[in-house]
Amino acid sequence: MKRTLPLSRVYRLLETGPVVMVTTAQKGRANIMTMSWHTMMDFEPPIVGCVISDQNYTFGILKATKECVINIPTVELAAKAVRCGNISGRNVDKFKKFHLTPIPASRVKAPLIEECYVNLECRLVNARLATQYNFFILEVLKAWIDPSRKNPRTIHHRGAGNFMVAGRTMKLPSRMK
Amino acid sequence: MKRTLPLSRVYRLLETGPVVMVTTAQKGRANIMTMSWHTMMDFEPPIVGCVISDQNYTFGILKATKECVINIPTVELAAKAVRCGNISGRNVDKFKKFHLTPIPASRVKAPLIEECYVNLECRLVNARLATQYNFFILEVLKAWIDPSRKNPRTIHHRGAGNFMVAGRTMKLPSRMK
Repeated sequence: MKRTLPLSRVYRLLETGPVVMVTTAQKGRANIMTMSWHTMMDFEPPIVGCVISDQNYTFGILKATKECVINIPTVELAAKAVRCGNISGRNVDKFKKFHLTPIPASRVKAPLIEECYVNLECRLVNARLATQYNFFILEVLKAWIDPSRKNPRTIHHRGAGNFMVAGRTMKLPSRMK
Repeated sequence: MKRTLPLSRVYRLLETGPVVMVTTAQKGRANIMTMSWHTMMDFEPPIVGCVISDQNYTFGILKATKECVINIPTVELAAKAVRCGNISGRNVDKFKKFHLTPIPASRVKAPLIEECYVNLECRLVNARLATQYNFFILEVLKAWIDPSRKNPRTIHHRGAGNFMVAGRTMKLPSRMK
């Protein structure tokens, strides 16, 4: 079972640079897009910047609906995440095709992916650089996490189909948040 | 010895989300800032977006000089990267204090950090979101890599001084670049 994660902790999940799966919904149809180009921009409320190509089906949906969910998969889902990234959702229901489970979100119409250990419900807050840079700024409204996942093996794209799997965690005396 | 890396390969180094060390220089004084909030924004020329707080000494230098170097450390340098992030360069020469070696860059005045396995010489190309979001967009002009580092153990901040160390790499049939 997932529980709510305080918004002040969200940066800890994205700052490591994981591959994520972005869900959107429009006219009752949900879609999934795999994405690696994102960064935290502020702690609380959590602000996330991301690049979504105007070649992607999700680009138009996000611009129109101003909502999405960022879902974070772990290595068990890596093959599905990659397959989701290889095809367009224009003519395919990716939830069905890849046997992923959509769960209603609480603040947005886009669904959560149940199989992902984290789900971040987001609304679009700034698209000033969307035309020039395909850059969208999102605010996380609600965060969900599977609390049983202590050292999540997220995946991190190295390009050309090579993925680094998150290794061990070490503690250092950082004064950074 | 480092060699030049084709600019088309730069995204493979940043897409995984490593902690990086940003060097700047102004009036003959070089500085280092540790940073985790960055994302690739385009492949070639490589465009990188990053968040540098206006509380940081580097913020003003980057705005004024429009140049920096993104240096990528591996786990051997983790303690120094963290210590660089814990203090301000306003009154300290971090190269001296942390026994890091500045090397002249070829396209910018900011120095490379010799001990880092990758150095990306950058110029500022867009600061439209700098005031509102502390967001800077950089173009990589020249890239250097130590070719002997086949599976670099980059570090990835999990918040509160916890750092994930890059684990194994696996290959999946992705059609993504």
